[in-house]
Amino acid sequence: MSTATNLGGVTEPGALMAAEIAEQPTVLARLLTDGAAEIADVAAQIHQYAPRFVVLAARGTSDHAALYAKYLAEIRIGVPAGLASPSSMTVYGARPDLSGVLFLAVSQSGGSPDLVDSLSVAQACGALTVAVTNNPGSDLAAAAALHVDVRAGVERAVAATKTYTAELLALYLLLAGDRDGIAPAEVAAPLAAAAERTLATGAGVKAAQRYRQVDRLVTTGRGYSYPSAREAALKLMETSYLSAQAFSGADLLHGPLAMIDSAVPVIALVSPGRGGAAMAPVLERLATSGADVLPVGRPDGIPLASDGIAEELLPILEILPLQQLAWRLALDRAEDPDHPRGLAKVTRTW
Amino acid sequence: MSTATNLGGVTEPGALMAAEIAEQPTVLARLLTDGAAEIADVAAQIHQYAPRFVVLAARGTSDHAALYAKYLAEIRIGVPAGLASPSSMTVYGARPDLSGVLFLAVSQSGGSPDLVDSLSVAQACGALTVAVTNNPGSDLAAAAALHVDVRAGVERAVAATKTYTAELLALYLLLAGDRDGIAPAEVAAPLAAAAERTLATGAGVKAAQRYRQVDRLVTTGRGYSYPSAREAALKLMETSYLSAQAFSGADLLHGPLAMIDSAVPVIALVSPGRGGAAMAPVLERLATSGADVLPVGRPDGIPLASDGIAEELLPILEILPLQQLAWRLALDRAEDPDHPRGLAKVTRTW
Repeated sequence: MSTATNLGGVTEPGALMAAEIAEQPTVLARLLTDGAAEIADVAAQIHQYAPRFVVLAARGTSDHAALYAKYLAEIRIGVPAGLASPSSMTVYGARPDLSGVLFLAVSQSGGSPDLVDSLSVAQACGALTVAVTNNPGSDLAAAAALHVDVRAGVERAVAATKTYTAELLALYLLLAGDRDGIAPAEVAAPLAAAAERTLATGAGVKAAQRYRQVDRLVTTGRGYSYPSAREAALKLMETSYLSAQAFSGADLLHGPLAMIDSAVPVIALVSPGRGGAAMAPVLERLATSGADVLPVGRPDGIPLASDGIAEELLPILEILPLQQLAWRLALDRAEDPDHPRGLAKVTRTW
Repeated sequence: MSTATNLGGVTEPGALMAAEIAEQPTVLARLLTDGAAEIADVAAQIHQYAPRFVVLAARGTSDHAALYAKYLAEIRIGVPAGLASPSSMTVYGARPDLSGVLFLAVSQSGGSPDLVDSLSVAQACGALTVAVTNNPGSDLAAAAALHVDVRAGVERAVAATKTYTAELLALYLLLAGDRDGIAPAEVAAPLAAAAERTLATGAGVKAAQRYRQVDRLVTTGRGYSYPSAREAALKLMETSYLSAQAFSGADLLHGPLAMIDSAVPVIALVSPGRGGAAMAPVLERLATSGADVLPVGRPDGIPLASDGIAEELLPILEILPLQQLAWRLALDRAEDPDHPRGLAKVTRTW
């Protein structure tokens, strides 16, 4: 059941999430104007440190931003990268040698105690620690050697939207490096306008009717778009309580394909670029299964205003209509996407 | 619809998978007697190489064995470890500096072309490459500098069972190192008998009736047991086509908890040990959600014959009743777990 909310004068279910989705072009533009210099400074320090390896630590939505950063580190910096298993250090007491390692923690609130613990242990083990948060006053920001503020403003909906895209852009500015001699902030300059145009199509909102009766759904993508598939699935789970599973296009063929038939629709990330192109064989296989496939990033599915946008930045565009979809679908199913049951904004893990 | 199979004289649906599940104590004992010396030799070469970082590459079921190896590398060797994102190298052409890196590929068949490509690129980038397979004559074994044969015998059911536990044990022997001066093969000596006793309880088979009408299910665990949660979910998806999602206990609290209510049962890995102990707060939260929770590794749920078994080896026991569950549930739902629809034994990704 949906319940009307009354928080800061906002009374409509989903009003907080809708406002924060719509705010994203402004948030991206602000980060590019106000934040780029600060991030370039942190990027220079990372460049000087010349990490031999990158460990990424995050939970929930920020974990998908961390996964995006893993691809950036491997492809753009050319060093191996891995997502931390925090329990190795916090539950089993591992104290690995992290000299020469960049330990990058991503957290909207900067308040998750287990992330602070992991980062502190990593620092004690010799890593250069960097926190990417939406809260420069947070414990995580204080514990890290360097901090990047994503400047998204207070996020009030429990389902994160604007902090996710702000984290992606901050990580791009931090890790992507120059492109043909052009600084990342300059490469990203057309992004805010492209986000505005992508949201304005309303394609994600319209797609909601397609999933009104669905309780299982699969999302899939490759490369830079795999984190988008993961984040879209989480958004749908959080707000509409449907069982959404994300697979990399390659993993989908190793087992999970068996559960896909005409009753399980698939949302496929196929934005222009090498990751989208590598999805072609997956789409072929899906076509033979009779699955209902919605291609995101293609005119016959959900189009993006992606002209002139670097492929590394497409994840920032492609999640936008999927946020709109999650929001609209929750409302259509009489849920309040601003206040998912059983969830708090800051999750305390241990 | 189930169809009777006729492969090598076996005619009953699920007969292949049942036989391979039952064969596991023999497979584990064989690996400990025939394989331990060879693996100890590879382990010594890894020790001498003294990797500064471990990259793990695998797909499907073997990816869960690789995740288990990530915990072993971090906790027992004390070096950071990460799962490879093969597309970084195969789709985007990344050529990271992998000098001093151990690149460990895990594959039942050793025949997945993208894994062979990734391993070859890693070798060219300076990594020490090790392949863990069930096929010493495979392309992957040939491409790697070192090879570990898990000696599970031919696996004919599409859903992998005996090759999974054999991979886990091989990785334990390879990475765990001595425990209080005792070699890993000696620590693992009681494992085969414990596997026999765990299978004999039939608790996994009995649990199938509980999920006969279920089409969504969540599995969860922490630390060494998180890979077990992932593998159990994949087995259920492959054989019974239900939507099974795995979450680390910590991640479960960051979003997915919203979709769990009395209609979505949870299988929780809570074997004795630090990972199981760290699940206590998760179980508390689940109790308040009204979810149907089946604890694996506890007498009031699915018990394991875990007395005297090192906690790093518990994943080899705890997956056994969950394989039995997936097998029985598929049969109860009139599916043939030996031949899941849409899946081949060797998956060709690119």
